[in-house]
Amino acid sequence: MTYTLILLRHGRSDWNEKNLFTGWVDVDLTDDGRAEGRRAGELLAASGLLPDVQYTSLLKRAIHTANLALETADRDWIDVKRSWRLNERHYGALQGLDKAETLEKYGEEQFMTWRRSFDTPPPPLDDDSEFSQAHDPRYAELGADLPRTECLKDVIERMLPYWESDIKVDLAAGKTVLVTAHGNSLRALVKHLDGISDADIAELNIPTGIPLVYELGDDFMPTKPSEYLDPAAAAAGAAAVAAQGKK
Amino acid sequence: MTYTLILLRHGRSDWNEKNLFTGWVDVDLTDDGRAEGRRAGELLAASGLLPDVQYTSLLKRAIHTANLALETADRDWIDVKRSWRLNERHYGALQGLDKAETLEKYGEEQFMTWRRSFDTPPPPLDDDSEFSQAHDPRYAELGADLPRTECLKDVIERMLPYWESDIKVDLAAGKTVLVTAHGNSLRALVKHLDGISDADIAELNIPTGIPLVYELGDDFMPTKPSEYLDPAAAAAGAAAVAAQGKK
Repeated sequence: MTYTLILLRHGRSDWNEKNLFTGWVDVDLTDDGRAEGRRAGELLAASGLLPDVQYTSLLKRAIHTANLALETADRDWIDVKRSWRLNERHYGALQGLDKAETLEKYGEEQFMTWRRSFDTPPPPLDDDSEFSQAHDPRYAELGADLPRTECLKDVIERMLPYWESDIKVDLAAGKTVLVTAHGNSLRALVKHLDGISDADIAELNIPTGIPLVYELGDDFMPTKPSEYLDPAAAAAGAAAVAAQGKK
Repeated sequence: MTYTLILLRHGRSDWNEKNLFTGWVDVDLTDDGRAEGRRAGELLAASGLLPDVQYTSLLKRAIHTANLALETADRDWIDVKRSWRLNERHYGALQGLDKAETLEKYGEEQFMTWRRSFDTPPPPLDDDSEFSQAHDPRYAELGADLPRTECLKDVIERMLPYWESDIKVDLAAGKTVLVTAHGNSLRALVKHLDGISDADIAELNIPTGIPLVYELGDDFMPTKPSEYLDPAAAAAGAAAVAAQGKK
Protein backbone atom coordinates (compact mmCIF):
# COMPACT_ATOMS: atom_id res chain seq x y z
CA MET A 1 0.00 0.00 0.00
CA THR A 2 1.28 3.47 -0.90
CA TYR A 3 -0.16 6.89 -0.14
CA THR A 4 -0.12 10.07 -2.20
CA LEU A 5 0.74 13.45 -0.69
CA ILE A 6 0.83 16.62 -2.79
CA LEU A 7 2.48 19.79 -1.48
CA LEU A 8 1.80 23.19 -3.02
CA ARG A 9 3.44 26.48 -2.10
CA HIS A 10 1.11 29.47 -2.58
CA GLY A 11 1.60 31.75 -5.59
CA ARG A 12 3.29 35.11 -5.47
CA SER A 13 1.72 37.61 -3.09
CA ASP A 14 1.59 41.38 -2.87
CA TRP A 15 4.49 41.39 -0.44
CA ASN A 16 6.62 38.97 -2.46
CA GLU A 17 6.25 41.61 -5.15
CA LYS A 18 7.22 44.41 -2.76
CA ASN A 19 10.06 42.29 -1.30
CA LEU A 20 8.76 42.58 2.27
CA PHE A 21 8.99 39.98 5.04
CA THR A 22 5.45 38.64 5.29
CA GLY A 23 5.23 35.80 7.83
CA TRP A 24 1.78 35.80 9.43
CA VAL A 25 0.65 39.08 7.82
CA ASP A 26 -2.38 38.14 5.72
CA VAL A 27 -1.57 39.59 2.30
CA ASP A 28 -3.34 38.45 -0.85
CA LEU A 29 -2.06 36.95 -4.11
CA THR A 30 -1.07 39.14 -7.03
CA ASP A 31 -2.61 38.53 -10.45
CA ASP A 32 0.50 36.47 -11.23
CA GLY A 33 -0.07 34.51 -8.03
CA ARG A 34 -3.65 33.78 -9.02
CA ALA A 35 -2.41 32.57 -12.40
CA GLU A 36 0.02 30.28 -10.56
CA GLY A 37 -2.91 28.82 -8.59
CA ARG A 38 -4.82 28.08 -11.78
CA ARG A 39 -1.69 26.64 -13.40
CA ALA A 40 -1.24 24.32 -10.41
CA GLY A 41 -4.79 23.11 -11.00
CA GLU A 42 -4.05 22.44 -14.66
CA LEU A 43 -0.97 20.42 -13.65
CA LEU A 44 -3.03 18.41 -11.16
CA ALA A 45 -5.76 17.73 -13.71
CA ALA A 46 -3.25 16.76 -16.41
CA SER A 47 -1.41 14.41 -14.03
CA GLY A 48 -4.60 12.60 -13.08
CA LEU A 49 -3.74 13.19 -9.41
CA LEU A 50 -7.07 13.92 -7.77
CA PRO A 51 -6.96 15.13 -4.17
CA ASP A 52 -9.66 13.75 -1.86
CA VAL A 53 -9.03 16.26 0.90
CA GLN A 54 -7.25 19.59 1.04
CA TYR A 55 -5.36 21.25 3.86
CA THR A 56 -4.40 24.93 4.05
CA SER A 57 -2.98 27.40 6.51
CA LEU A 58 -5.22 30.21 7.82
CA LEU A 59 -3.62 32.72 5.43
CA LYS A 60 -5.48 33.89 2.35
CA ARG A 61 -2.55 33.54 -0.04
CA ALA A 62 -2.60 29.78 0.62
CA ILE A 63 -6.42 29.53 0.77
CA HIS A 64 -6.85 31.38 -2.52
CA THR A 65 -4.11 29.38 -4.26
CA ALA A 66 -5.85 26.16 -3.21
CA ASN A 67 -9.29 27.48 -4.21
CA LEU A 68 -8.01 28.42 -7.67
CA ALA A 69 -6.12 25.16 -8.16
CA LEU A 70 -9.07 23.00 -7.12
CA GLU A 71 -11.57 25.09 -9.08
CA THR A 72 -9.40 24.65 -12.17
CA ALA A 73 -9.05 20.90 -11.53
CA ASP A 74 -12.85 20.67 -10.92
CA ARG A 75 -12.30 19.28 -7.40
CA ASP A 76 -13.45 22.13 -5.19
CA TRP A 77 -16.08 19.91 -3.56
CA ILE A 78 -13.49 17.91 -1.59
CA ASP A 79 -13.16 18.21 2.20
CA VAL A 80 -11.27 21.23 3.52
CA LYS A 81 -9.19 21.45 6.67
CA ARG A 82 -7.32 24.54 7.80
CA SER A 83 -4.87 25.10 10.62
CA TRP A 84 -2.58 27.82 11.92
CA ARG A 85 -0.03 24.99 12.24
CA LEU A 86 0.45 25.20 8.47
CA ASN A 87 1.04 28.98 8.55
CA GLU A 88 4.24 30.52 7.28
CA ARG A 89 7.04 31.00 9.79
CA HIS A 90 6.28 34.00 12.01
CA TYR A 91 9.00 36.46 11.08
CA GLY A 92 8.83 38.38 14.35
CA ALA A 93 9.92 42.03 14.24
CA LEU A 94 10.95 41.57 10.59
CA GLN A 95 7.30 41.33 9.49
CA GLY A 96 6.54 44.31 7.27
CA LEU A 97 10.22 45.22 6.72
CA ASP A 98 11.81 45.47 3.27
CA LYS A 99 14.14 42.52 2.62
CA ALA A 100 16.75 44.48 0.64
CA GLU A 101 16.79 47.32 3.21
CA THR A 102 17.11 44.81 6.04
CA LEU A 103 20.00 43.14 4.21
CA GLU A 104 21.72 46.48 3.68
CA LYS A 105 21.15 47.75 7.22
CA TYR A 106 22.19 44.63 9.14
CA GLY A 107 24.60 42.99 6.69
CA GLU A 108 24.44 39.62 5.01
CA GLU A 109 25.46 37.56 8.05
CA GLN A 110 22.72 38.85 10.34
CA PHE A 111 20.24 38.84 7.46
CA MET A 112 20.95 35.22 6.58
CA THR A 113 20.88 34.23 10.25
CA TRP A 114 17.41 35.69 10.67
CA ARG A 115 16.25 34.37 7.36
CA ARG A 116 17.66 30.89 7.41
CA SER A 117 19.05 29.99 10.84
CA PHE A 118 17.54 26.72 12.01
CA ASP A 119 17.19 27.74 15.64
CA THR A 120 17.69 31.51 15.97
CA PRO A 121 14.43 33.44 15.65
CA PRO A 122 14.36 37.17 14.81
CA PRO A 123 13.44 39.55 17.68
CA PRO A 124 9.78 39.14 18.71
CA LEU A 125 7.09 41.33 17.19
CA ASP A 126 5.41 43.77 19.56
CA ASP A 127 1.69 43.09 20.14
CA ASP A 128 1.00 46.74 19.35
CA SER A 129 2.53 46.48 15.88
CA GLU A 130 0.18 46.87 12.94
CA PHE A 131 1.72 43.60 11.71
CA SER A 132 0.90 41.66 14.90
CA GLN A 133 -1.72 38.91 15.10
CA ALA A 134 -2.24 39.36 18.85
CA HIS A 135 -5.77 40.70 18.30
CA ASP A 136 -6.73 38.58 15.29
CA PRO A 137 -9.82 36.46 16.09
CA ARG A 138 -8.63 33.57 13.95
CA TYR A 139 -5.87 32.90 16.49
CA ALA A 140 -7.95 33.55 19.62
CA GLU A 141 -7.85 29.88 20.58
CA LEU A 142 -4.04 29.95 20.81
CA GLY A 143 -4.10 32.32 23.79
CA ALA A 144 -0.63 32.79 25.23
CA ASP A 145 0.77 30.24 22.74
CA LEU A 146 0.44 32.71 19.84
CA PRO A 147 3.90 33.02 18.27
CA ARG A 148 5.57 36.46 18.32
CA THR A 149 8.52 35.13 16.31
CA GLU A 150 9.71 31.77 15.06
CA CYS A 151 12.77 30.02 13.70
CA LEU A 152 12.39 26.97 11.45
CA LYS A 153 12.81 24.70 14.47
CA ASP A 154 9.73 26.34 16.01
CA VAL A 155 7.78 25.79 12.80
CA ILE A 156 8.69 22.09 12.82
CA GLU A 157 7.62 21.81 16.45
CA ARG A 158 4.15 23.21 15.78
CA MET A 159 3.68 21.66 12.32
CA LEU A 160 4.70 18.02 12.88
CA PRO A 161 2.07 17.33 15.58
CA TYR A 162 -0.57 18.29 12.97
CA TRP A 163 1.05 16.01 10.40
CA GLU A 164 0.73 13.19 12.93
CA SER A 165 -2.74 14.00 14.26
CA ASP A 166 -4.55 14.94 11.06
CA ILE A 167 -2.76 14.66 7.73
CA LYS A 168 -1.40 11.15 8.30
CA VAL A 169 -4.84 10.00 9.41
CA ASP A 170 -6.36 11.08 6.09
CA LEU A 171 -3.50 9.44 4.20
CA ALA A 172 -3.98 6.24 6.20
CA ALA A 173 -7.62 6.24 5.11
CA GLY A 174 -6.37 6.01 1.54
CA LYS A 175 -7.07 9.64 0.67
CA THR A 176 -4.89 11.63 -1.69
CA VAL A 177 -4.00 14.74 0.33
CA LEU A 178 -3.20 18.22 -1.01
CA VAL A 179 -1.42 20.56 1.43
CA THR A 180 -1.31 24.18 0.26
CA ALA A 181 0.96 26.19 2.50
CA HIS A 182 4.12 28.28 2.69
CA GLY A 183 7.85 28.21 2.04
CA ASN A 184 8.78 27.40 5.61
CA SER A 185 5.88 25.22 6.74
CA LEU A 186 6.41 23.07 3.64
CA ARG A 187 10.18 23.10 4.20
CA ALA A 188 9.51 21.78 7.70
CA LEU A 189 7.48 18.90 6.29
CA VAL A 190 9.98 18.15 3.50
CA LYS A 191 12.80 18.13 6.07
CA HIS A 192 10.95 15.44 7.97
CA LEU A 193 10.03 13.38 4.90
CA ASP A 194 13.40 13.57 3.17
CA GLY A 195 15.49 13.37 6.34
CA ILE A 196 17.32 16.62 5.61
CA SER A 197 19.77 17.80 8.28
CA ASP A 198 19.35 20.99 10.32
CA ALA A 199 22.31 22.45 8.41
CA ASP A 200 21.23 21.50 4.91
CA ILE A 201 17.59 22.56 5.12
CA ALA A 202 18.57 26.24 4.77
CA GLU A 203 19.58 25.57 1.18
CA LEU A 204 16.29 23.96 0.18
CA ASN A 205 14.10 26.31 -1.86
CA ILE A 206 10.54 25.29 -2.71
CA PRO A 207 9.17 27.04 -5.81
CA THR A 208 5.73 28.65 -5.77
CA GLY A 209 2.71 27.22 -7.56
CA ILE A 210 4.08 23.83 -8.65
CA PRO A 211 2.64 20.68 -7.07
CA LEU A 212 5.28 18.46 -5.43
CA VAL A 213 4.20 14.82 -5.27
CA TYR A 214 5.28 12.27 -2.67
CA GLU A 215 4.54 8.58 -2.76
CA LEU A 216 4.64 7.35 0.82
CA GLY A 217 4.88 3.81 2.17
CA ASP A 218 3.31 2.17 5.21
CA ASP A 219 5.60 4.17 7.48
CA PHE A 220 4.39 7.40 5.80
CA MET A 221 7.90 8.05 4.54
CA PRO A 222 8.83 8.33 0.84
CA THR A 223 9.23 5.14 -1.20
CA LYS A 224 11.11 7.10 -3.89
CA PRO A 225 12.23 10.68 -4.56
CA SER A 226 9.44 13.25 -4.70
CA GLU A 227 8.65 14.86 -8.06
CA TYR A 228 7.43 18.25 -9.17
CA LEU A 229 4.67 18.09 -11.76
CA ASP A 230 6.60 20.60 -13.90
CA PRO A 231 10.29 19.91 -13.12
CA ALA A 232 11.73 22.57 -15.43
CA ALA A 233 9.51 25.32 -14.01
CA ALA A 234 10.24 24.07 -10.50
CA ALA A 235 14.01 24.39 -10.98
CA ALA A 236 13.64 27.93 -12.32
CA GLY A 237 11.25 28.81 -9.48
CA ALA A 238 13.59 27.48 -6.79
CA ALA A 239 16.43 29.58 -8.20
CA ALA A 240 14.19 32.66 -8.12
CA VAL A 241 13.31 32.04 -4.46
CA ALA A 242 17.00 31.60 -3.59
CA ALA A 243 17.74 35.00 -5.12
CA GLN A 244 15.11 36.80 -3.01
CA GLY A 245 16.37 39.70 -0.95
CA LYS A 246 19.41 40.08 -3.21
CA LYS A 247 19.47 43.33 -5.14
CA MET B 1 -28.36 32.37 25.05
CA THR B 2 -29.16 32.88 21.39
CA TYR B 3 -27.48 31.49 18.29
CA THR B 4 -26.93 33.05 14.88
CA LEU B 5 -27.61 31.17 11.67
CA ILE B 6 -27.13 32.78 8.26
CA LEU B 7 -28.58 31.20 5.11
CA LEU B 8 -27.36 32.16 1.65
CA ARG B 9 -28.74 30.95 -1.66
CA HIS B 10 -26.06 30.74 -4.38
CA GLY B 11 -25.95 33.41 -7.08
CA ARG B 12 -27.28 32.99 -10.60
CA SER B 13 -25.77 30.11 -12.54
CA ASP B 14 -25.26 29.36 -16.21
CA TRP B 15 -28.42 27.27 -16.24
CA ASN B 16 -30.53 29.84 -14.40
CA GLU B 17 -29.56 32.05 -17.29
CA LYS B 18 -30.51 29.40 -19.86
CA ASN B 19 -33.72 28.58 -17.92
CA LEU B 20 -32.84 24.87 -17.58
CA PHE B 21 -33.67 22.55 -14.68
CA THR B 22 -30.34 22.13 -12.89
CA GLY B 23 -30.74 20.04 -9.75
CA TRP B 24 -27.53 18.09 -9.12
CA VAL B 25 -25.88 19.07 -12.41
CA ASP B 26 -22.73 20.95 -11.40
CA VAL B 27 -22.94 24.18 -13.38
CA ASP B 28 -20.94 27.27 -12.46
CA LEU B 29 -21.97 30.81 -11.58
CA THR B 30 -22.36 33.48 -14.23
CA ASP B 31 -20.48 36.77 -13.88
CA ASP B 32 -23.68 38.15 -12.35
CA GLY B 33 -23.72 35.24 -9.94
CA ARG B 34 -20.14 35.93 -8.90
CA ALA B 35 -21.08 39.57 -8.31
CA GLU B 36 -23.94 38.35 -6.10
CA GLY B 37 -21.44 36.32 -4.06
CA ARG B 38 -19.24 39.37 -3.52
CA ARG B 39 -22.29 41.50 -2.69
CA ALA B 40 -23.34 38.94 -0.08
CA GLY B 41 -19.89 39.31 1.47
CA GLU B 42 -20.26 43.10 1.56
CA LEU B 43 -23.63 42.72 3.29
CA LEU B 44 -22.12 40.33 5.85
CA ALA B 45 -19.18 42.66 6.51
CA ALA B 46 -21.44 45.73 6.80
CA SER B 47 -23.78 43.92 9.21
CA GLY B 48 -20.95 42.92 11.51
CA LEU B 49 -22.16 39.30 11.30
CA LEU B 50 -19.00 37.24 11.20
CA PRO B 51 -19.42 33.53 10.47
CA ASP B 52 -17.17 31.17 12.45
CA VAL B 53 -17.87 28.15 10.28
CA GLN B 54 -19.29 27.74 6.80
CA TYR B 55 -21.34 24.91 5.32
CA THR B 56 -21.92 24.29 1.62
CA SER B 57 -23.35 21.66 -0.66
CA LEU B 58 -21.01 19.73 -2.97
CA LEU B 59 -22.03 21.87 -5.95
CA LYS B 60 -19.71 24.55 -7.28
CA ARG B 61 -22.34 27.26 -7.62
CA ALA B 62 -22.77 27.15 -3.83
CA ILE B 63 -19.06 26.63 -3.10
CA HIS B 64 -18.03 29.56 -5.29
CA THR B 65 -20.73 31.84 -3.89
CA ALA B 66 -19.48 31.09 -0.38
CA ASN B 67 -15.82 31.53 -1.38
CA LEU B 68 -16.56 34.92 -2.93
CA ALA B 69 -18.70 36.09 -0.01
CA LEU B 70 -16.14 35.06 2.60
CA GLU B 71 -13.23 36.43 0.60
CA THR B 72 -15.04 39.76 0.37
CA ALA B 73 -15.85 39.72 4.08
CA ASP B 74 -12.22 38.76 4.87
CA ARG B 75 -13.32 35.55 6.63
CA ASP B 76 -12.16 32.83 4.25
CA TRP B 77 -9.99 31.27 6.96
CA ILE B 78 -13.00 29.89 8.88
CA ASP B 79 -13.75 26.16 9.05
CA VAL B 80 -15.45 24.62 6.02
CA LYS B 81 -17.87 21.70 5.97
CA ARG B 82 -19.52 20.35 2.86
CA SER B 83 -22.22 17.75 2.37
CA TRP B 84 -24.38 16.33 -0.41
CA ARG B 85 -27.23 16.70 2.11
CA LEU B 86 -27.23 20.44 1.35
CA ASN B 87 -27.41 19.87 -2.42
CA GLU B 88 -30.25 21.25 -4.50
CA ARG B 89 -33.26 19.00 -4.99
CA HIS B 90 -32.48 16.29 -7.54
CA TYR B 91 -34.80 17.13 -10.42
CA GLY B 92 -34.83 13.62 -11.87
CA ALA B 93 -35.53 13.32 -15.58
CA LEU B 94 -36.13 17.08 -15.75
CA GLN B 95 -32.41 17.81 -15.22
CA GLY B 96 -31.09 19.49 -18.36
CA LEU B 97 -34.56 20.29 -19.74
CA ASP B 98 -35.67 23.82 -20.64
CA LYS B 99 -38.21 25.13 -18.12
CA ALA B 100 -40.31 27.07 -20.60
CA GLU B 101 -40.41 24.15 -23.07
CA THR B 102 -41.33 21.76 -20.27
CA LEU B 103 -44.11 24.11 -19.20
CA GLU B 104 -45.42 24.33 -22.77
CA LYS B 105 -45.15 20.61 -23.47
CA TYR B 106 -46.74 19.29 -20.27
CA GLY B 107 -48.97 22.18 -19.27
CA GLU B 108 -48.97 24.31 -16.16
CA GLU B 109 -50.56 21.73 -13.86
CA GLN B 110 -48.00 18.98 -14.50
CA PHE B 111 -45.20 21.56 -14.56
CA MET B 112 -46.16 23.04 -11.19
CA THR B 113 -46.64 19.56 -9.74
CA TRP B 114 -43.11 18.57 -10.70
CA ARG B 115 -41.70 21.89 -9.69
CA ARG B 116 -43.49 22.49 -6.43
CA SER B 117 -45.36 19.41 -5.28
CA PHE B 118 -44.36 18.55 -1.74
CA ASP B 119 -44.34 14.81 -2.22
CA THR B 120 -44.50 13.98 -5.96
CA PRO B 121 -41.04 13.66 -7.50
CA PRO B 122 -40.48 13.93 -11.27
CA PRO B 123 -39.66 10.68 -13.11
CA PRO B 124 -36.23 9.32 -12.13
CA LEU B 125 -33.16 10.23 -14.18
CA ASP B 126 -31.53 7.36 -16.05
CA ASP B 127 -28.00 6.49 -14.87
CA ASP B 128 -26.84 6.66 -18.48
CA SER B 129 -27.96 10.27 -18.88
CA GLU B 130 -25.23 12.85 -19.36
CA PHE B 131 -26.95 14.71 -16.49
CA SER B 132 -26.73 11.76 -14.07
CA GLN B 133 -24.44 11.69 -11.00
CA ALA B 134 -24.34 7.88 -10.90
CA HIS B 135 -20.65 7.85 -11.86
CA ASP B 136 -19.55 11.01 -10.05
CA PRO B 137 -16.81 10.19 -7.49
CA ARG B 138 -18.03 12.84 -5.07
CA TYR B 139 -21.15 10.74 -4.42
CA ALA B 140 -19.41 7.34 -4.39
CA GLU B 141 -20.02 6.94 -0.65
CA LEU B 142 -23.79 7.10 -1.16
CA GLY B 143 -23.84 3.84 -3.10
CA ALA B 144 -27.41 2.73 -3.78
CA ASP B 145 -28.74 5.69 -1.78
CA LEU B 146 -27.80 8.15 -4.53
CA PRO B 147 -31.00 10.01 -5.48
CA ARG B 148 -32.30 9.65 -9.04
CA THR B 149 -35.10 12.13 -8.37
CA GLU B 150 -36.47 13.99 -5.36
CA CYS B 151 -39.51 15.90 -4.19
CA LEU B 152 -39.18 18.53 -1.44
CA LYS B 153 -40.21 15.91 1.13
CA ASP B 154 -37.18 13.83 0.10
CA VAL B 155 -34.92 16.86 0.46
CA ILE B 156 -36.21 17.47 3.97
CA GLU B 157 -35.62 13.83 4.87
CA ARG B 158 -31.96 13.92 3.82
CA MET B 159 -31.24 17.50 4.96
CA LEU B 160 -32.70 17.59 8.48
CA PRO B 161 -30.49 14.75 9.84
CA TYR B 162 -27.46 16.88 8.87
CA TRP B 163 -28.99 19.92 10.58
CA GLU B 164 -29.28 17.81 13.72
CA SER B 165 -25.93 16.00 13.53
CA ASP B 166 -23.66 18.84 12.40
CA ILE B 167 -25.05 22.35 12.00
CA LYS B 168 -26.84 22.44 15.37
CA VAL B 169 -23.69 21.14 17.06
CA ASP B 170 -21.67 24.10 15.76
CA LEU B 171 -24.44 26.50 16.77
CA ALA B 172 -24.55 24.95 20.23
CA ALA B 173 -20.81 25.63 20.53
CA GLY B 174 -21.64 29.33 20.13
CA LYS B 175 -20.47 29.56 16.54
CA THR B 176 -22.13 31.82 14.00
CA VAL B 177 -22.93 29.47 11.10
CA LEU B 178 -23.19 30.37 7.41
CA VAL B 179 -25.00 27.82 5.22
CA THR B 180 -24.59 28.45 1.48
CA ALA B 181 -26.89 26.20 -0.48
CA HIS B 182 -29.82 26.06 -2.89
CA GLY B 183 -33.42 27.09 -3.35
CA ASN B 184 -34.86 23.80 -2.19
CA SER B 185 -32.36 22.70 0.44
CA LEU B 186 -32.74 26.11 2.10
CA ARG B 187 -36.51 25.96 1.67
CA ALA B 188 -36.41 22.64 3.53
CA LEU B 189 -34.54 24.24 6.43
CA VAL B 190 -36.75 27.35 6.48
CA LYS B 191 -39.86 25.12 6.49
CA HIS B 192 -38.54 23.45 9.63
CA LEU B 193 -37.48 26.66 11.36
CA ASP B 194 -40.58 28.70 10.54
CA GLY B 195 -43.04 25.83 10.90
CA ILE B 196 -44.43 26.27 7.38
CA SER B 197 -47.05 23.73 6.28
CA ASP B 198 -46.54 21.23 3.45
CA ALA B 199 -49.08 23.20 1.41
CA ASP B 200 -47.68 26.69 2.02
CA ILE B 201 -44.00 25.92 1.44
CA ALA B 202 -44.54 25.83 -2.34
CA GLU B 203 -45.16 29.57 -2.27
CA LEU B 204 -41.97 30.43 -0.42
CA ASN B 205 -39.31 31.86 -2.74
CA ILE B 206 -35.82 32.47 -1.44
CA PRO B 207 -33.90 35.12 -3.41
CA THR B 208 -30.33 34.48 -4.56
CA GLY B 209 -27.29 36.12 -3.03
CA ILE B 210 -28.87 37.85 -0.01
CA PRO B 211 -27.97 36.59 3.47
CA LEU B 212 -31.01 35.58 5.56
CA VAL B 213 -30.33 35.84 9.28
CA TYR B 214 -31.97 33.77 12.02
CA GLU B 215 -31.62 34.32 15.72
CA LEU B 216 -32.29 30.98 17.40
CA GLY B 217 -33.06 30.19 21.02
CA ASP B 218 -32.04 27.29 23.24
CA ASP B 219 -34.37 25.00 21.29
CA PHE B 220 -32.65 26.06 18.03
CA MET B 221 -35.88 27.57 16.80
CA PRO B 222 -36.32 31.28 15.93
CA THR B 223 -36.80 33.78 18.74
CA LYS B 224 -38.12 36.34 16.24
CA PRO B 225 -38.78 36.60 12.50
CA SER B 226 -35.73 36.06 10.28
CA GLU B 227 -34.38 39.05 8.35
CA TYR B 228 -32.69 39.52 5.00
CA LEU B 229 -29.68 41.79 5.17
CA ASP B 230 -31.05 43.74 2.18
CA PRO B 231 -34.86 43.47 2.52
CA ALA B 232 -35.72 45.52 -0.59
CA ALA B 233 -33.41 43.49 -2.83
CA ALA B 234 -34.70 40.28 -1.22
CA ALA B 235 -38.32 41.11 -2.06
CA ALA B 236 -37.43 41.87 -5.67
CA GLY B 237 -35.32 38.70 -5.88
CA ALA B 238 -38.09 36.48 -4.49
CA ALA B 239 -40.49 37.86 -7.09
CA ALA B 240 -37.98 37.11 -9.85
CA VAL B 241 -37.61 33.51 -8.63
CA ALA B 242 -41.39 33.09 -8.53
CA ALA B 243 -41.61 34.17 -12.17
CA GLN B 244 -39.04 31.56 -13.33
CA GLY B 245 -40.27 29.25 -16.06
CA LYS B 246 -42.95 31.71 -17.08
CA LYS B 247 -42.44 33.12 -20.54
